[in-house]
Amino acid sequence: VTTLRSARASDVWLRGILSSLYRIRPATRADVGRHARLNNASVSRGLNQLIDAGIIRKLGELESGGGRPRDLLAINPDAAGFVAVDLEGIAVRFAHTDFLGGIRRRWEAAVPLGHFFPVDKVFEGIDIVLRDATPGERDRVQAIGVSFPGLMTKEGLLTAVNLGWRDVPLERLLRDRFRLPVFLERDEGTSIRAERSHGRAKEARNWIYLIVSNGVGVGLVVDGRHVAGHTHMSGELGHVTIDSNLDVRCQCGKYGCLETVASTPAIVQYYGDLTGHPPASLAEISLSHIFELARRGDPAAVTTVERAGRALGLALSHAVNLLNPELILLGGDIVAGQDVLTPLLRKELGRHVLPHLARVVEIAASDLGPDVRLRGAASLAFHGCLAEPHLLARLCKLPEST
Amino acid sequence: VTTLRSARASDVWLRGILSSLYRIRPATRADVGRHARLNNASVSRGLNQLIDAGIIRKLGELESGGGRPRDLLAINPDAAGFVAVDLEGIAVRFAHTDFLGGIRRRWEAAVPLGHFFPVDKVFEGIDIVLRDATPGERDRVQAIGVSFPGLMTKEGLLTAVNLGWRDVPLERLLRDRFRLPVFLERDEGTSIRAERSHGRAKEARNWIYLIVSNGVGVGLVVDGRHVAGHTHMSGELGHVTIDSNLDVRCQCGKYGCLETVASTPAIVQYYGDLTGHPPASLAEISLSHIFELARRGDPAAVTTVERAGRALGLALSHAVNLLNPELILLGGDIVAGQDVLTPLLRKELGRHVLPHLARVVEIAASDLGPDVRLRGAASLAFHGCLAEPHLLARLCKLPEST
Repeated sequence: VTTLRSARASDVWLRGILSSLYRIRPATRADVGRHARLNNASVSRGLNQLIDAGIIRKLGELESGGGRPRDLLAINPDAAGFVAVDLEGIAVRFAHTDFLGGIRRRWEAAVPLGHFFPVDKVFEGIDIVLRDATPGERDRVQAIGVSFPGLMTKEGLLTAVNLGWRDVPLERLLRDRFRLPVFLERDEGTSIRAERSHGRAKEARNWIYLIVSNGVGVGLVVDGRHVAGHTHMSGELGHVTIDSNLDVRCQCGKYGCLETVASTPAIVQYYGDLTGHPPASLAEISLSHIFELARRGDPAAVTTVERAGRALGLALSHAVNLLNPELILLGGDIVAGQDVLTPLLRKELGRHVLPHLARVVEIAASDLGPDVRLRGAASLAFHGCLAEPHLLARLCKLPEST
Repeated sequence: VTTLRSARASDVWLRGILSSLYRIRPATRADVGRHARLNNASVSRGLNQLIDAGIIRKLGELESGGGRPRDLLAINPDAAGFVAVDLEGIAVRFAHTDFLGGIRRRWEAAVPLGHFFPVDKVFEGIDIVLRDATPGERDRVQAIGVSFPGLMTKEGLLTAVNLGWRDVPLERLLRDRFRLPVFLERDEGTSIRAERSHGRAKEARNWIYLIVSNGVGVGLVVDGRHVAGHTHMSGELGHVTIDSNLDVRCQCGKYGCLETVASTPAIVQYYGDLTGHPPASLAEISLSHIFELARRGDPAAVTTVERAGRALGLALSHAVNLLNPELILLGGDIVAGQDVLTPLLRKELGRHVLPHLARVVEIAASDLGPDVRLRGAASLAFHGCLAEPHLLARLCKLPEST
């Protein structure tokens, strides 16, 4: 019992140290202490243990004016690995990552539109990214992180429209097949994780992540914490009423939803209608193409982008008045149009937001590219292992057992 | 140094115990441990200290099946006191409260519309509520809590339109005059405190507090924590654009703000316009009068209430889609009309919110009455003292020094 207690006490230090070094690369002991809110003794004891185990390495020393040189510390990326899966969109993405979420091997499988995507294909994707791993690398894989669209019940049954899945017990299936811990999170959660660990939102504490793709959604971060909501369904910006007079019925059954104006398919559809494209050819038009045409002054493209910008800006204005954020981060298909969209969003915020609130909010675009959720899934797996004592113990003692 | 350290360590226990017993009245040791997330040893040591000091009393015992009877514990309301001030509205309210925020003496001063309210009148109000206190009671007053409308700069300069104040250094003035610690918080924060300590939101973790009075604002609570915003300006529901076609210019300079439709003066104005009341007589019409007429089927009152309900419901729908709350609490002048307003709000949520999100959110009205912010200001003073080591020490050792 005594051993257990002392091990548990230091879990807090190990967690704090590892999650600090996941975000700050490299860091001094003082950085770690400040970020993890630990005192010097705790940082030292935890660090010594992790350095001895080969988890953390000294990269070098930082000369400081007069005082002792300070060690520069970093997580050893080879000390552990994760499997990351992103089920979103028209492709399912797989990666074998290192400790820090750096992608070692990557693969993606196309999702045929309107067909059932067999769970076996998920197994196959994971097998593929692990195929070339050495036995040692394979042994060091700690967990599987999965980013999913759609809904999951409390019992872990996943419903994802793009995959044709209804009540699929994915966590159990993956755990049984791979004998690894499995962590699942909705796409907006994994996107937020990625931006905080690797992206533009490293410093922000109050921010809104606007993601436009087949749907429109936001991830909300308030005082550094992701807003989940009472039933884990927050961020449904796509279903705010943007114009009660719109006669397009949304998938959700309501009229006037933002999603019927400003999702990627809705924007493309509008441009197609304006230009008289035959419906069958719409699939060939991408949002980045429309942004490019708008950049060149094509009137139909300009009208299309302005309409989407007005709708997104109005919807965001409600969120900004409510939450007083410091940053709106653009993600998904609108990243390609950040230069044309940002001024339109600014204009709408100017019209619909208290002047002070509009002034203090920055608008920026994600720079993580299409692997954002994959990197978030790796971060999920990492943090999932930190949270559970037996997985943390495995993670920290790993080199001894190989 | 050693003494200081050991005192600091137990601060966490004392804080946890006192804030648990502020909310759960009375509570067992187990209740306290669970609520404060402290182990048995910490709860016992902290409780013994507080019982010895006369801060906490045993009220009796709870027989439990077979086991030892469990002590029922409660804060001794007489062990300390606070001064609470509410600067909101057409009256400024003052109270001398007991430890638990129970009001002992209360006074209010009318605020003459459009005139400067002298800070001396605030001093006077505090003097009045403390006038009949015994020397012992006066000594046990720990701090002053102030609920304010408007804005405060980082330097503590308060601007409050209803008082005609611009950059008034209220904290410093009160501290100098009364030689007591002073805590100030915006009205929406104190209202939330009151509802969590004494009102309908004791159990809720994700909720929205809709307050309609001279303006319209919301207090947001996410996962048990009040959302402040990047520059402490969250909750500006009154300035979301509800209808771009409205030609009434808001105080903020924009057009179409919710506040121009659904604040108390805006609702009264609309009813006055419908019924041809001369503008001078509008001041005599209260919102509760309009609600009463609507209840009886008066067509102008029904139209008026429906219009306000539509606007409030649409604005709330954005907040519900974004935040997925479990409760919307109605506060301010609309409490009097909760029976007529709630069905209207429900209807709008049905139109503008994802069905699941509309289903899980409850609508209720505050039952704390006009002293809600006064009680919140007392709670602010209490929690302010807990947070600062030297004030906590004073609070916990109080009976020794009298």
